[in-house]
Amino acid sequence: MINIEQANREATDRMIEARPVLVGLGRALDVIPGMREDLLLHAGPPITWERASGPLKGAIIGALIFEGKARDAAEAERLVTSGQIRLEPCHHHQAVGPMAGVTSPSMAVYIIENKTHGNRAFSNLNEGYGKVLRYGAYDESVQARLRWMHEVMAPILRDAIEASGGIDIRALLAEALHMGDEGHNRNKAGSVLFLKALAPYIAKAAPSSEVASDILKAIGDNALSVLNPVMAACKAMADAAHGIQGSTIVTTMARNGTDFGIRVSGLGDRWFTGPSQVPRGLYFPGFSAEDANPDIGDSTITETAGIGGFAMATAPAIVTFVSGTPKDAINTTLEMYEITFTEHRYFTIPALDFRGTPTGIDIRKVVETGITPRINTGIAHKEAGIGQIGAGLVRPPMSIFEEALVAFAEEYGF
Amino acid sequence: MINIEQANREATDRMIEARPVLVGLGRALDVIPGMREDLLLHAGPPITWERASGPLKGAIIGALIFEGKARDAAEAERLVTSGQIRLEPCHHHQAVGPMAGVTSPSMAVYIIENKTHGNRAFSNLNEGYGKVLRYGAYDESVQARLRWMHEVMAPILRDAIEASGGIDIRALLAEALHMGDEGHNRNKAGSVLFLKALAPYIAKAAPSSEVASDILKAIGDNALSVLNPVMAACKAMADAAHGIQGSTIVTTMARNGTDFGIRVSGLGDRWFTGPSQVPRGLYFPGFSAEDANPDIGDSTITETAGIGGFAMATAPAIVTFVSGTPKDAINTTLEMYEITFTEHRYFTIPALDFRGTPTGIDIRKVVETGITPRINTGIAHKEAGIGQIGAGLVRPPMSIFEEALVAFAEEYGF
Repeated sequence: MINIEQANREATDRMIEARPVLVGLGRALDVIPGMREDLLLHAGPPITWERASGPLKGAIIGALIFEGKARDAAEAERLVTSGQIRLEPCHHHQAVGPMAGVTSPSMAVYIIENKTHGNRAFSNLNEGYGKVLRYGAYDESVQARLRWMHEVMAPILRDAIEASGGIDIRALLAEALHMGDEGHNRNKAGSVLFLKALAPYIAKAAPSSEVASDILKAIGDNALSVLNPVMAACKAMADAAHGIQGSTIVTTMARNGTDFGIRVSGLGDRWFTGPSQVPRGLYFPGFSAEDANPDIGDSTITETAGIGGFAMATAPAIVTFVSGTPKDAINTTLEMYEITFTEHRYFTIPALDFRGTPTGIDIRKVVETGITPRINTGIAHKEAGIGQIGAGLVRPPMSIFEEALVAFAEEYGF
Repeated sequence: MINIEQANREATDRMIEARPVLVGLGRALDVIPGMREDLLLHAGPPITWERASGPLKGAIIGALIFEGKARDAAEAERLVTSGQIRLEPCHHHQAVGPMAGVTSPSMAVYIIENKTHGNRAFSNLNEGYGKVLRYGAYDESVQARLRWMHEVMAPILRDAIEASGGIDIRALLAEALHMGDEGHNRNKAGSVLFLKALAPYIAKAAPSSEVASDILKAIGDNALSVLNPVMAACKAMADAAHGIQGSTIVTTMARNGTDFGIRVSGLGDRWFTGPSQVPRGLYFPGFSAEDANPDIGDSTITETAGIGGFAMATAPAIVTFVSGTPKDAINTTLEMYEITFTEHRYFTIPALDFRGTPTGIDIRKVVETGITPRINTGIAHKEAGIGQIGAGLVRPPMSIFEEALVAFAEEYGF
């Protein structure tokens, strides 16, 4: 007879005690397990070209142009539909990527190592704002930015990370949560803490003071620069909690722009998927919900690990970006205690008397309470090539938690 | 007949609309009005050597050794008691300094320019933590640090500030208040935002990558690095509000370690002083209230300008440093609305639905309500040469507000 409580205790203990440290940066082909020359990784559960949404298609096109494998959209599409290029989820390769999450073989990725349990996780570099690949833009300005990031910035970042001796991302996040970040949609504090940790090493690693200056500016001016290492850190924490026999804790939540998928610690690698929703939120001038793509990206790994929407009480200022009031932000966190197994020991909320963030989504509690996880997210235009049009709040479909619970009952013979 | 309400509206409008920008860095003797070779500036209202507390004496000794004018404590004391070296408040020279606040002729000072009204303000460089001059330590380790700061860091900082085109400190503070700072005792976010603003220019201005690296580390690792520019910015805001005929708004609050002094907008340059109190707070291991010096420093210029203790609701995490609970932090801000004339338009508090911080201490309200201003502060050891031993909360004596109100009534013939 399995003991679900005990299994969930073990899963969440492992999630919380995981200590993800940014130890390096490498080429995806060299460092991501199972990466291949003919492979593109993408956010969310598995998907085909035919079912892919506009921003995911745009990012695939852009990545193949970046790799020198396609010259334009038509050529990229042929490569994918003919099977010469394969698509697989980042999550199948210990990786995560924000929004479209497309990661190609020669892209640079952050390397996170969980010092407690030894597992690794990976994420690509953050491009900043505006027209960017992760939102499905792929024109020459996007390509030029990607080339600079990979040819100029990545080697210096790699050397700086190594010279720093590694950056403890759990500690950085704990600090950033006391500085108004929630770690998903608001990473202002974390990104400047990231700059602070690396700046002395970037200055030394750069081949010239001009290059050092450019990289310091690129990292400092991008209030999402730490998002990708944070996501990989959350992936390392969530993976540490995966595969515990009898556990009902969610260890993956991810969206490919069409489907929202979850995986559960005690249910192996099986995805439970349902339709991804359009976020409710605030739109940039000139855009509305009609332009919005359904929710996309692996960044829900933050909520999976107990931050992001779950830690909104730490980030009252975020409501100016995602809509709502500071009281709503507090209430969001309070609501998430209803569906989580425990409270985090390292991620705490000053405004709630330093209570730990709600951690470890329990599919039983989601189904029992009828409360689905709350997610903070960016909003992509539904057409390829445009980019971000807003930010807001979204929830996964309830059906996937119900299906997971049915599967759990079947698996364990209840 | 004077109209106090109208005068206070004008004073607080000027305080709030002042836009202090960090425009440069210069040698005190060259840039501070009225600075002289035989002069040392100090925190708080005027004081003699005989009445000075331990940490102020220690800082005076240390500054004279730094200037090459004394070799030891005895020689420094003779210079001051003989009148060869004079002591005057920073506040008499458009300057402010944290803790002892001692500023000597060859020290580097930040130059703040109020772009709205044209007045300037100055503050020395922050030395970081541990044994430091501002807490009255003056041994060779303190001297070596001061020499490095002045010989190596200051020229690069000057060039970087100039190349940056200036840093809008009001905007930086507004952002930092949304990132868990209150701007006096917690400047973690502001200091990394300061690093972010300067890093690209420091990299370019430094003579070598090693020096760039050292300076980036010194600024990034010091969570108070922005305190001194912030204090000078608050001084520029408060000075803009000073000298309004008929105004009961406090434009200076400062302590020299013996006396707490205030000045009032409509009462010219006259100080109202009373005994400085020992803060209540948390002490570092091995120290207690018995070791503490009475409250010292010009850093209360932050509360004078509507931040610091007045903005504690923005900084719930600070209670781990100064004592109390997050609820106390909210209550402190709420209490300060009782004694202030208005609410700030640029400094807002997310947790209070973006309400403006309580701004413009009105001596009438202090006396009427019996509520004195709440101040967040560091605690110095009462003996020279030791340094910081804790942090906590303090209030000025009520008597000085009563005396100021009596003087106001006499001045304006009530």
